[in-house]
Amino acid sequence: MNVSRSNGRVIALCGGVGGAKLAYGLQYILGSDLTLIVNTGDDFEHLGLKISPDIDTVLYTLSGLANRELGWGRQDESWNFMETLAGLGGETWFRLGDRDLALHAERTRRLRTGETLSSITSSFAAHFGIAAQVLPMSDDPISTVVASSEGVLPFQRYFVERRCAPQVESIHFERAASARASSEVLSALGDPDLQAIIVCPSNPFLSIDPILSVPGIGSAIRAASVPMVAVSPIIGGKAVKGPTDKIMDELGVPRTSKAIAEHYGALIDGLVVDVSDADECEIAGCAVRLAASLMKTDDDRIRLAGETLEFARQLASSPQRAAQRQKL
Amino acid sequence: MNVSRSNGRVIALCGGVGGAKLAYGLQYILGSDLTLIVNTGDDFEHLGLKISPDIDTVLYTLSGLANRELGWGRQDESWNFMETLAGLGGETWFRLGDRDLALHAERTRRLRTGETLSSITSSFAAHFGIAAQVLPMSDDPISTVVASSEGVLPFQRYFVERRCAPQVESIHFERAASARASSEVLSALGDPDLQAIIVCPSNPFLSIDPILSVPGIGSAIRAASVPMVAVSPIIGGKAVKGPTDKIMDELGVPRTSKAIAEHYGALIDGLVVDVSDADECEIAGCAVRLAASLMKTDDDRIRLAGETLEFARQLASSPQRAAQRQKL
Repeated sequence: MNVSRSNGRVIALCGGVGGAKLAYGLQYILGSDLTLIVNTGDDFEHLGLKISPDIDTVLYTLSGLANRELGWGRQDESWNFMETLAGLGGETWFRLGDRDLALHAERTRRLRTGETLSSITSSFAAHFGIAAQVLPMSDDPISTVVASSEGVLPFQRYFVERRCAPQVESIHFERAASARASSEVLSALGDPDLQAIIVCPSNPFLSIDPILSVPGIGSAIRAASVPMVAVSPIIGGKAVKGPTDKIMDELGVPRTSKAIAEHYGALIDGLVVDVSDADECEIAGCAVRLAASLMKTDDDRIRLAGETLEFARQLASSPQRAAQRQKL
Repeated sequence: MNVSRSNGRVIALCGGVGGAKLAYGLQYILGSDLTLIVNTGDDFEHLGLKISPDIDTVLYTLSGLANRELGWGRQDESWNFMETLAGLGGETWFRLGDRDLALHAERTRRLRTGETLSSITSSFAAHFGIAAQVLPMSDDPISTVVASSEGVLPFQRYFVERRCAPQVESIHFERAASARASSEVLSALGDPDLQAIIVCPSNPFLSIDPILSVPGIGSAIRAASVPMVAVSPIIGGKAVKGPTDKIMDELGVPRTSKAIAEHYGALIDGLVVDVSDADECEIAGCAVRLAASLMKTDDDRIRLAGETLEFARQLASSPQRAAQRQKL
């Protein structure tokens, strides 16, 4: 694997599963030079526990603890809690493994003492031996809700309980307007050594937009005069996992990487598009890099991360791109 | 086993382990004619979960799910939650098994919807196939606190975290004065078919006194003109389990069954004393029944329950006792 350690910081915006896979590759290359800003719009309280699904997926994936068979949760998991809860007639639509529960219980306890989610997440990352900096997008609660054919649903009810079956009409980030970006997030985005910002191949509507909805994050991204590169989550007209393609249909957006580029608009300088979508290698106003973007193995993750970083470096040295960013 | 099903209701006041063993025997004999009024002074919130240790011990013991090796918690338990929590640097002084956790999580969820602890406990008992009626002493929160050589400690900090090491100076039941007995408890105590009230061999100071501290329960007991019989938790100057004897020393009370009778005073009509304490078979103002009161097996539990019920029946038919109760 021909990867070299970068100098300076790289930031990646990241949701859950798909995004965490690229984050794994980025961490392999960048180590502690990587800062992840993770979606917390999916966070919710369940059974009295504060659950941060995307942060947990990132922590488990970066530490090698993720359950690759399930595609969520921890490896070596047991389900005695859930089995007993089912026997008591309890709510079992959101499955919590016995080991996974510990993370939620400890997070809940520490949040109640007044500690910030940023601080708790950083402590968990250290316990898991994670080199990258893992930051929640905000320490203030923001809740993604889905206006759907079945009414307005809290995100987890839509995503897990109803398995994304309701037709999406619009997506809202409750309390985003009054939320603040954490000082850690603003400090990372303002780092003079920042080299690039990567948008992981997460769901743009459900995982990346919440991050961009936090006041201050969008403007800090624009103020950082570094290339911003997204990796398209669409391969051959489909999402690898999750409801991205279904939501694009429901929102009347074509299932294409071009539509992803248009969604991010002037914010991004480049888009990594899967080699199978070579017909989309020309997108107005956005540089395109073709790459094999399906990540089945750790090698896939590292290779795609390497190509994405290389693409960002090329864009950084392109006079045309630099001039274009100045106009934003 | 020569046991006959009683007619009419029997109430037992009960704390955790020792009390639950006699409750098991009583349920074997009485089935659904048994009502347990259980201490909730030990209840507390931990890791965001509402925990009712004595109710849970009673539920596990009556359903045959209790962990006999540990003396607390469930059988067939796994500890993956706790192991992971320890790895995160979390609080591990109160051990929660993976299956046990389900009870706390479901109780917490239902309490938050506004359901009463009585209703939730009744539902859990039904799920566990328990014939007896299991009632918390109150649906209002009451917290046992221990004034000790290490300051005022919440009960679980004293009992579990500090393993009863601090010297007890006094014991208080916070918020008891403003608590109400539940309608279920008052209805049971006012049942015209009530035959007897049994005080299980729980710690009088930490498990029975909290029940008696609930406004209305003491007067309802006095108003019920049925024999009240306690089973002494002291055998040969020692408590079978727990800190009863140590606390008696610290409170300046002799470690005797006679002192237990004096503690309950005029409230009880009779005391079951272990055969090894035959020298205590004369206690002024209190009938004594000698019985083998160590409960190692299910047969021990059922036999002691049968002898206790028979003693209560004898007292009910004693003109002297009946006259004495009228004077209360």
